[in-house]
Amino acid sequence: MIVVVSLNPALDITHRVDHADWSGVNRPADVHVRPGGKGVNVARVLKALGVDVLLTGLAGGATGSSLRAELSGRGVDAVMAEIAGETRRTFAVVDSGRGETALFNEPGPAVTADEYARFEDTFAAQLAGATAVVLSGSLPLGMPASTYADLIALAADAGVPALLDTSGEALMLGAAAGPEIVKPNLAELHATAERRMTPATPKGGSAAGGDRAGWPDAASSWCCSPVAAAARAADTLRGAGASAVVVTLGSDGLLALTSEESWHAWPQPVSGGNPTGAGDAAAAGLAHGLASGRPWRDRVTHAAALGAAAVTAPVAGELDLSDYRRALAGVQIGAARQRWH
Amino acid sequence: MIVVVSLNPALDITHRVDHADWSGVNRPADVHVRPGGKGVNVARVLKALGVDVLLTGLAGGATGSSLRAELSGRGVDAVMAEIAGETRRTFAVVDSGRGETALFNEPGPAVTADEYARFEDTFAAQLAGATAVVLSGSLPLGMPASTYADLIALAADAGVPALLDTSGEALMLGAAAGPEIVKPNLAELHATAERRMTPATPKGGSAAGGDRAGWPDAASSWCCSPVAAAARAADTLRGAGASAVVVTLGSDGLLALTSEESWHAWPQPVSGGNPTGAGDAAAAGLAHGLASGRPWRDRVTHAAALGAAAVTAPVAGELDLSDYRRALAGVQIGAARQRWH
Repeated sequence: MIVVVSLNPALDITHRVDHADWSGVNRPADVHVRPGGKGVNVARVLKALGVDVLLTGLAGGATGSSLRAELSGRGVDAVMAEIAGETRRTFAVVDSGRGETALFNEPGPAVTADEYARFEDTFAAQLAGATAVVLSGSLPLGMPASTYADLIALAADAGVPALLDTSGEALMLGAAAGPEIVKPNLAELHATAERRMTPATPKGGSAAGGDRAGWPDAASSWCCSPVAAAARAADTLRGAGASAVVVTLGSDGLLALTSEESWHAWPQPVSGGNPTGAGDAAAAGLAHGLASGRPWRDRVTHAAALGAAAVTAPVAGELDLSDYRRALAGVQIGAARQRWH
Repeated sequence: MIVVVSLNPALDITHRVDHADWSGVNRPADVHVRPGGKGVNVARVLKALGVDVLLTGLAGGATGSSLRAELSGRGVDAVMAEIAGETRRTFAVVDSGRGETALFNEPGPAVTADEYARFEDTFAAQLAGATAVVLSGSLPLGMPASTYADLIALAADAGVPALLDTSGEALMLGAAAGPEIVKPNLAELHATAERRMTPATPKGGSAAGGDRAGWPDAASSWCCSPVAAAARAADTLRGAGASAVVVTLGSDGLLALTSEESWHAWPQPVSGGNPTGAGDAAAAGLAHGLASGRPWRDRVTHAAALGAAAVTAPVAGELDLSDYRRALAGVQIGAARQRWH
């Protein structure tokens, strides 16, 4: 069983309107409610893949009750510890006439030390049956940035490998706790690196040639290309303590760095679609590969395909298995490290 | 005790942002949740006035639970019959930078015949202790337009006078059931009249002179002035069966027509403020006057003051008693009928 931790889940409410009147009254043609937040998306994709998964975390108030009901209605096993605060809502207005979406994200509840302690006790017990742990998403306001590091240490004590997907201070401190994988996206990585890293001096590098258009030429531009910059920032996270770093690069796929291997996998281009939740689908693939001990080449291939399939799905956290199989056939993969070292 | 019926209440969620990005991600500075819907506003104003009030109606799902919790937290006695459908949300984005508000109103749940029958049994029992009944707001989708008429008939059987505030077919059928008061606003009245009334030919009229700037000159423009047109449409509702018709006219106050009296009361102008809920505050004042048998002149004076005080309050359904007392001192009132007949 894979345990997925979601400390700050959300109830996602979507209103679809034709042409929104931003200074008047609108009557949405369509209202959609779903359980949201990165950890919830990961758990739902794992479930869609047929993986035994338990979602755990914190939920409170009537919105928390709605969240539990929506999870249960989708067959996701969830044990969310009760908190006094109200679980956050996200509210999306999809203007189908203009082709625009406005998103309004509530800040989420405060969590008391007692509430968190109760959650941690439950989590420690859940580790007994776990093959891997995924810690995903932001921390509730006011919760210590070391929270994920503490949970990773608990998992390590129980011999359960952990995957961490968050940003900022929580990512840096979490990486230092030695998880098997950290999986930031490019924006999270840059935001974290900007705060933490001193400007590095180029170490030089040799290009191994490229079999893909757009693949950065490491010799001439590695200091500036997104992929090379990601690789450098990822090295910092590995230096901090993470065994492996996987950076999701949007339509450029993902980059995986371990002490011995480095891979870049990228899917066929997907036209249109909804990129929200693609990184979470990739995280689900990596967690599945981690729990089942697959080789890294397999892990990143499947993760890239899951990311692409998630873009095809209209709603984050949902996955069509036939999209996944189709994407899998189109994924390209290459060893990456020699491109910039 | 005044019984207020709210068959389609709402949970009102307000997000305050500085300058909304209608095609991006917004993090509201302020999130406010309150129980909403016209009947809920009426009940809250009655409670603020110190009147013994019971809110009754239908609520369901997690949003229904939130609604009950928000009512209870505000000390409003409410017995909302459980339905399987989900109580509707309204979502307001207040853009304080642009001074604009966008409102997104969900359609609300379907109600089964069994669920309604259970509510009606409860309502019939509640009538035993009632001094007046207020029926306010829209009907849930698919509910017969005769619903309010049926409830008014039940109230009449129990000897309890009724005030009806709704629109369209439900207003016309409700008026025919003989309530003591129907209280549409001008827009509701026009919408109802347009569907129901054949174009009337002017009957002529004599102006009695005016003691207020903007008061329409009945002789020259009664067929076109909003107040005179309102009076004509109101006569139709009285003809249908309502004992009295009160039309709320926004900043022009309100107009009351009975078989023997006709009054126009208007408050001092209120600068700025929030007109949402002003009509509900006026309805609360009328219901209070109805339950306590006050003369019509008093009823409309207090209703006009409550409407003005509600405009001053930042949130619909809330009322500052000192605003109310201040508004009361400024209300002007005149007999109205001779102005257009």
